[in-house]
Amino acid sequence: MERLAIVGVGLIGGSLALALRRAGYCHEVVGAGRDRASLQRALDMGVIDRFELDVCSAVRGADVVVLATPVGVIESVCRSMRGCLGDTSILTDVGSVKAAVVQAVEAGLGRLPTHFVPGHPIAGRERAGVEAAEADLYQGRRVILTPLPEGDVTAALAVKRMWEAAGAQVENMPVAHHDEVLAATSHLPHLLAYTLVSSLSRLDEQEEIFRYAAGGFRDFTRIASSDPVMWRDICLHNRDDIVAMLRHFRGDLDILEKAIAGADGDRLLTLFQRAKQTRDRFCG
Amino acid sequence: MERLAIVGVGLIGGSLALALRRAGYCHEVVGAGRDRASLQRALDMGVIDRFELDVCSAVRGADVVVLATPVGVIESVCRSMRGCLGDTSILTDVGSVKAAVVQAVEAGLGRLPTHFVPGHPIAGRERAGVEAAEADLYQGRRVILTPLPEGDVTAALAVKRMWEAAGAQVENMPVAHHDEVLAATSHLPHLLAYTLVSSLSRLDEQEEIFRYAAGGFRDFTRIASSDPVMWRDICLHNRDDIVAMLRHFRGDLDILEKAIAGADGDRLLTLFQRAKQTRDRFCG
Repeated sequence: MERLAIVGVGLIGGSLALALRRAGYCHEVVGAGRDRASLQRALDMGVIDRFELDVCSAVRGADVVVLATPVGVIESVCRSMRGCLGDTSILTDVGSVKAAVVQAVEAGLGRLPTHFVPGHPIAGRERAGVEAAEADLYQGRRVILTPLPEGDVTAALAVKRMWEAAGAQVENMPVAHHDEVLAATSHLPHLLAYTLVSSLSRLDEQEEIFRYAAGGFRDFTRIASSDPVMWRDICLHNRDDIVAMLRHFRGDLDILEKAIAGADGDRLLTLFQRAKQTRDRFCG
Repeated sequence: MERLAIVGVGLIGGSLALALRRAGYCHEVVGAGRDRASLQRALDMGVIDRFELDVCSAVRGADVVVLATPVGVIESVCRSMRGCLGDTSILTDVGSVKAAVVQAVEAGLGRLPTHFVPGHPIAGRERAGVEAAEADLYQGRRVILTPLPEGDVTAALAVKRMWEAAGAQVENMPVAHHDEVLAATSHLPHLLAYTLVSSLSRLDEQEEIFRYAAGGFRDFTRIASSDPVMWRDICLHNRDDIVAMLRHFRGDLDILEKAIAGADGDRLLTLFQRAKQTRDRFCG
């Protein structure tokens, strides 16, 4: 690959650039964004070779363009790229939701390019920004691609190879299925962690409560330190699947509450045993 | 201390014994329990000096007796100790709930000994049993004692010193307050983790769902691998506080769901920002 353009050089985009540079996968990495100071840091850190504040200049002539901005600004970013993105340039993204990104790209560009391959690396951390970027972030992690039925097959293959060069394992699934699975495995847990911390912070004894929180609590709420803007965008852009999962969960929470209120020890034991077995089996 | 008796030599009781032996805090540790094979392992591991299957023989002549069984059997264990527990023997426990333990001790012994000091080490791990015991488990961890108003002050001091010798920081609080604080910081998170895993395991795509679960999910659900019997007992013995916390949490979950369904981005952002600030401030 000659030239890679990364729009939004934060943790995710920056780590991809570092990994691909280390692998010798591309000759030039151009960063684009609105925050000059942050792009300058990326340049100083050796994440990118140069940067442009004008997204149009950044994507012109790029072999691959990676959209790594918050999902909420993808439509406007794509609007700025109209007329500059080459017909054979491969376009991909890293958004945590896929149906909304496909819509945003189509709305922004006025068409859905055949060389557009939606993607989602299942990796991240609580710290955000290019300062947190590292070449190893994707090592052994999964990346889900959701190639569109009408999309170009070679473009999908190129994006797959790119992520593999960054150390990831790549798998494909349909857009709608991705959003459903992620609502369960990622979006719901994040929302529970945010709600738990917020719920406890409203209690009178909050200072004390957090003082007595042990290791389990720290692990449990780690994801509540994630980027609020990113999670607002995810909620707004995967609404139906998330609301469905919240309701599914709440039904189970109601059952649990009834079992506790009714002192139904057998039911509680069965429930906890099944959960422990499942967790040990899949994550043990 | 001459002789320490530990009733229930599992992770918690076994780790306390190891820590106190290493500190040279007591001359003899007697283990008691119902499972000969497990007590034999404790002996082989050097956790205890000898064991008794009869709890009465184990506690006779002990300076300190630590109840480290599941909370659900404390009443029957105490019944077996009637007439054997010396008047000056200090009795303490390690249960995750305190009001129910006080009740169980009183019901079992037929009276509340003045030398009884309820306690709760805020430490643990997913693996249970004496095999998981280690001398460092309490190093730097908090232990909450809930001395009773009518209790002996020197007994409370002795239990405090014992935990400090095991490396812990000891703090006192009233019984009812302990149960309320722990319902928030420990019981609620465990129940959410159990319910999440159980909820996801009922979905059609469960194999796939757990396959795409990333690091955040593993952290979040780690506590769902905890001991089901222990957690059933906690639920049954801290019912009112837990049900109150579940309702408090569910109210907040309802607000979140409405904000998502209504695409209220500002409200979502505020909620996530507040949670992140709180979490970073207390656990950062």
